[in-house]
Amino acid sequence: MIVILKSGVSREQVSDFSDILRKKYGVDVHTSFGEQSTVLGLVGDTKAVDIDSVSAFPIVETVRRVQEPYKKVNRKFHPDDTVIDVAGHKIGNGELQIMAGPCSVESEEQIVGIAESVKKSGANFLRGGAFKPRTSPYAFQGLRADGLELLKHAKLKTGMPIVTEIMSADHLPLFEDVDVIQVGARNMQNFELLKELGKCNKPILLKRGLANTIEETLMSAEYIMSNGNENVILCERGIRTYETFTRNTLDVSAVPVFKKLSHLPVVVDPSHASGITWLVEPLSLAAVAAGADGLMIEVHNDPPHALSDGAQSVTPEQFQRLCDKLFAVTNAIHSITHN
Amino acid sequence: MIVILKSGVSREQVSDFSDILRKKYGVDVHTSFGEQSTVLGLVGDTKAVDIDSVSAFPIVETVRRVQEPYKKVNRKFHPDDTVIDVAGHKIGNGELQIMAGPCSVESEEQIVGIAESVKKSGANFLRGGAFKPRTSPYAFQGLRADGLELLKHAKLKTGMPIVTEIMSADHLPLFEDVDVIQVGARNMQNFELLKELGKCNKPILLKRGLANTIEETLMSAEYIMSNGNENVILCERGIRTYETFTRNTLDVSAVPVFKKLSHLPVVVDPSHASGITWLVEPLSLAAVAAGADGLMIEVHNDPPHALSDGAQSVTPEQFQRLCDKLFAVTNAIHSITHN
Amino acid sequence: MIVILKSGVSREQVSDFSDILRKKYGVDVHTSFGEQSTVLGLVGDTKAVDIDSVSAFPIVETVRRVQEPYKKVNRKFHPDDTVIDVAGHKIGNGELQIMAGPCSVESEEQIVGIAESVKKSGANFLRGGAFKPRTSPYAFQGLRADGLELLKHAKLKTGMPIVTEIMSADHLPLFEDVDVIQVGARNMQNFELLKELGKCNKPILLKRGLANTIEETLMSAEYIMSNGNENVILCERGIRTYETFTRNTLDVSAVPVFKKLSHLPVVVDPSHASGITWLVEPLSLAAVAAGADGLMIEVHNDPPHALSDGAQSVTPEQFQRLCDKLFAVTNAIHSITHN
Amino acid sequence: MIVILKSGVSREQVSDFSDILRKKYGVDVHTSFGEQSTVLGLVGDTKAVDIDSVSAFPIVETVRRVQEPYKKVNRKFHPDDTVIDVAGHKIGNGELQIMAGPCSVESEEQIVGIAESVKKSGANFLRGGAFKPRTSPYAFQGLRADGLELLKHAKLKTGMPIVTEIMSADHLPLFEDVDVIQVGARNMQNFELLKELGKCNKPILLKRGLANTIEETLMSAEYIMSNGNENVILCERGIRTYETFTRNTLDVSAVPVFKKLSHLPVVVDPSHASGITWLVEPLSLAAVAAGADGLMIEVHNDPPHALSDGAQSVTPEQFQRLCDKLFAVTNAIHSITHN
Repeated sequence: MIVILKSGVSREQVSDFSDILRKKYGVDVHTSFGEQSTVLGLVGDTKAVDIDSVSAFPIVETVRRVQEPYKKVNRKFHPDDTVIDVAGHKIGNGELQIMAGPCSVESEEQIVGIAESVKKSGANFLRGGAFKPRTSPYAFQGLRADGLELLKHAKLKTGMPIVTEIMSADHLPLFEDVDVIQVGARNMQNFELLKELGKCNKPILLKRGLANTIEETLMSAEYIMSNGNENVILCERGIRTYETFTRNTLDVSAVPVFKKLSHLPVVVDPSHASGITWLVEPLSLAAVAAGADGLMIEVHNDPPHALSDGAQSVTPEQFQRLCDKLFAVTNAIHSITHN
Repeated sequence: MIVILKSGVSREQVSDFSDILRKKYGVDVHTSFGEQSTVLGLVGDTKAVDIDSVSAFPIVETVRRVQEPYKKVNRKFHPDDTVIDVAGHKIGNGELQIMAGPCSVESEEQIVGIAESVKKSGANFLRGGAFKPRTSPYAFQGLRADGLELLKHAKLKTGMPIVTEIMSADHLPLFEDVDVIQVGARNMQNFELLKELGKCNKPILLKRGLANTIEETLMSAEYIMSNGNENVILCERGIRTYETFTRNTLDVSAVPVFKKLSHLPVVVDPSHASGITWLVEPLSLAAVAAGADGLMIEVHNDPPHALSDGAQSVTPEQFQRLCDKLFAVTNAIHSITHN
Repeated sequence: MIVILKSGVSREQVSDFSDILRKKYGVDVHTSFGEQSTVLGLVGDTKAVDIDSVSAFPIVETVRRVQEPYKKVNRKFHPDDTVIDVAGHKIGNGELQIMAGPCSVESEEQIVGIAESVKKSGANFLRGGAFKPRTSPYAFQGLRADGLELLKHAKLKTGMPIVTEIMSADHLPLFEDVDVIQVGARNMQNFELLKELGKCNKPILLKRGLANTIEETLMSAEYIMSNGNENVILCERGIRTYETFTRNTLDVSAVPVFKKLSHLPVVVDPSHASGITWLVEPLSLAAVAAGADGLMIEVHNDPPHALSDGAQSVTPEQFQRLCDKLFAVTNAIHSITHN
Repeated sequence: MIVILKSGVSREQVSDFSDILRKKYGVDVHTSFGEQSTVLGLVGDTKAVDIDSVSAFPIVETVRRVQEPYKKVNRKFHPDDTVIDVAGHKIGNGELQIMAGPCSVESEEQIVGIAESVKKSGANFLRGGAFKPRTSPYAFQGLRADGLELLKHAKLKTGMPIVTEIMSADHLPLFEDVDVIQVGARNMQNFELLKELGKCNKPILLKRGLANTIEETLMSAEYIMSNGNENVILCERGIRTYETFTRNTLDVSAVPVFKKLSHLPVVVDPSHASGITWLVEPLSLAAVAAGADGLMIEVHNDPPHALSDGAQSVTPEQFQRLCDKLFAVTNAIHSITHN
């Protein structure tokens, strides 16, 4: 950590301040006196040093972190890729994992039908919402516990592991047979929920918040991991920007950045990133070309009559064509990379 | 709601589609055939019409909402200002309410000392964090239940009503003696929490999420109100933008906009909006000049040793000077407005 | 165009207002009376209707555009892809065009050396900055006219057409032998410059402004085209968001969106989009997978000693590996698409 | 400037790299060896050190600036407020300067009528657009040279100094009788224009670009000042964010921040910041409460028939009421500040 002092600070003030820092945080302090400003370098374990406290000293101009504030997710301390095995499907080992299904679980017929269809096209996880976070209290809120039952039923019928969103730690007992628990964008900084998920041993798919930085996303993963659960999958799903044509802006750079800074697998959700059916294909291809370990795609047999997110769901036919292209691009990239 | 159809759609398709909309949503449909596109006007109660479903029909180009999607918070259906009475202090009646206190409750001495000091300067609510949402799992997480006890103690000593943040509906029983329950920016779209708060009868101070629109904030207030609790106070606390000099960007326009669109009282938090001590005064004055009903300000007796948010806390002396200016500006505006 | 009137407006007011609109803009007006609001549909050529003027009428609540405000760039009026031929290289016909070279032209040896090297790797255009827009007046401002001379020299030696940025219409006479004139992000709404470029007949590579919408970018292209020059190439180069890890956020969705809304070719600049060398490869692959017609990549033989943009320049060796991957992905996508 | 090296770098590499920096930039280098990373402090005049070049060295992890990259605008080197005298009206001396007038100059009757009216209400500068930057090539582009003539005529009639926008350095000869030359948001980084304005001696009102940072705005002011013209007035006019209710988001914090970092006067344009008539009053009051030296307000006698920006123009009656409130708030703040 670097502490830049205001100009005009005396050597005695610098020395007194350095003593305080050494005692309070157990760090070593290196001093560099410049013409216009004096700079302190804090050396040691600065993870717990509070930038705000240090900034509040009257002689301080600014404070800048040098080390990343995360540890468990940091690739520097864990150079190998984390691979998460879900019922034999390995996320993060270089193969493409496709999670597909409807935005909301609506009925047995719907969820089983879509599951069988996407499985045939190449998906290996079934996604579907039972608890639905909706901006409006008047919108369909999901079938909730009943939706989970239908998902489990579809899992039994097809053998596909299931991915579904949790909205409150109180619902955890209902998620016992769920294979991957999803934390939605709006709950990415629901720290009480993250702590509880850190105490279970299920894979957690953590979606980046709609206006959260890459670093904040990694800090939320750190909440889960530092509480004991190391099975975290990161998910980029578009961020909020000034552009209004798309629902969100897919930050495709986040894929290689997440993989550089952390060792966790990275999945992309092109459906929420765009909000538009015809963008799902080009964004899926872009995500895979950028190195994503998996995709999460909304598929609905009858989008105009979907109870939610109809505008961004692809039909089973569109999904089939998309999978063909995805596997071709993945193969092309693999063949060059391994040459 | 306006539905714009793709060019080349036949009159028969338009007629079939209009029938579907009439049946599905119970709305009336007006049709306007143009040269390049046909436009449908959906008339009636369109609050429950799902834009996504309508957009998913292949003949639809785009859908635009005409009416606001909120009802209970809407000034159109409730023209008079809502005034919330908390222990005799009225929020929303034109007088300025100042909520002040430390970011985190740290000790009995600290919280009582600050409470007595800010009360003397003119604050009429005591704020203080017991449950603290922190980006890092390694940062101080608040004294939690013990912090609430200390706050209640300070309330007893000073007679000031207390405002403090809730992070999980499970903690609600602990908040029985809290006067105003705060929902933090990160939980603004924690809909399970909002629903539970809608079932209690305490005033809720709802902070705008760090990247949420004005409309989304009103929809979150609608969650609380539609569940039965009409005592909602809106709080602008800065939004996330590309500018990095300030921690957030205070959206001062949100104050008059919230008051135009809704009948709820509006409070501003200049401490979190800026993250910098010396900006608290100008932003507080700006907020009041723009029409805010109240302010929420972080005050700490010893900012460099605060356990959180030291860099944005003002000292009791700075707070005293700030209150003097605030009351002068409020008086100046009142005297002209009432002339 | 849809005009939503305030509630409580009388039928007579509506009729008077409709007459004004008919006379002022020569449009037809369809009226739809709803319970809560009356909606007018303006039908005809609304391209010149000023939203602000209409909004300023006291009885108007809001105005929403239905038709796109651009015409010459609009795919609706020009369904076929525009293909621009530059010295035999066709941009927009489905083949990948790679524009490569240093950020700044620095010397004859440098520009010729890099040109020969990138040509060998597969680039078919040479890019290089002579006039350099720099945030700081103290930074290197480019070799200006001398830089253009060196570029032309490299063109003679290698036969590669050259792409370089213009910063003022006054410099146009110097650009006579330039093959593609680039408008930088900071000048995307320098309308006086756009008008002048519309009067020349050279291909213009128009970079999206760092915080401009897709629609604004198309409107700037419309400035050039409506002044007579139809040879416009759009370029996505990253937009400004709250994320600070990357210099900008590559809006990869803009590629398929530009191609859907307009008929113009689309090129991506991954170097400026990220500002980081190791992101150039994954972003280039993502851009091509999303459908880009070309790439513009900064290559420097000695990045640490580059006079500008060293941190985002790849070396000739990295560029060679990148080209190999790009051609493999392009071939894979072509082979599926054409099956 | 702080240079953070990658972990695992040898002492010899550090020593070699330090030598390069010393020779290349004439700076002194202080080294601080930490457990996880080594940090170099560059001491001396680092204004011309190119961050990108330094970052491009393979052993460098990141580079962070300590000193501000601007010098002439920096309050550290010029502690006193700059006061700019325009025909006896002093901008920056603590008194409120109000610049008012129509978005576009439309006719002699219009500009003289509005000038006389706003003068009576308390405005002391006349603003009006002759050269108009418009997003659409089909929108009214201003009366251009004829508009300037009309402005000068209104100046003669009323004695008010005039403020108007320039769009190209080629037009400078036409601006000889203009009192304050405005650089619009879209040209804030038109560096060729800034350089030319630096060579004239007229006051320049520099508007912050719609997505430019505070620092970039100061760097554009530095372009003008380093070329010889020290009469720069900064103008905050709203920035682009994800919020769509207002046209832009007024960054009211920029007022105190500009005044802290620089010595230049700061003016606010609430009309463009909001784009909505009824927001002009609260935003004007907020700007003045936050410390603005002046305001720039669009006033039109007949907003619905204005040729541009009708939706954000106030009427002369609204302007009169606004001025009354502004002077009351200014007086209230002055009276406390000077106690």
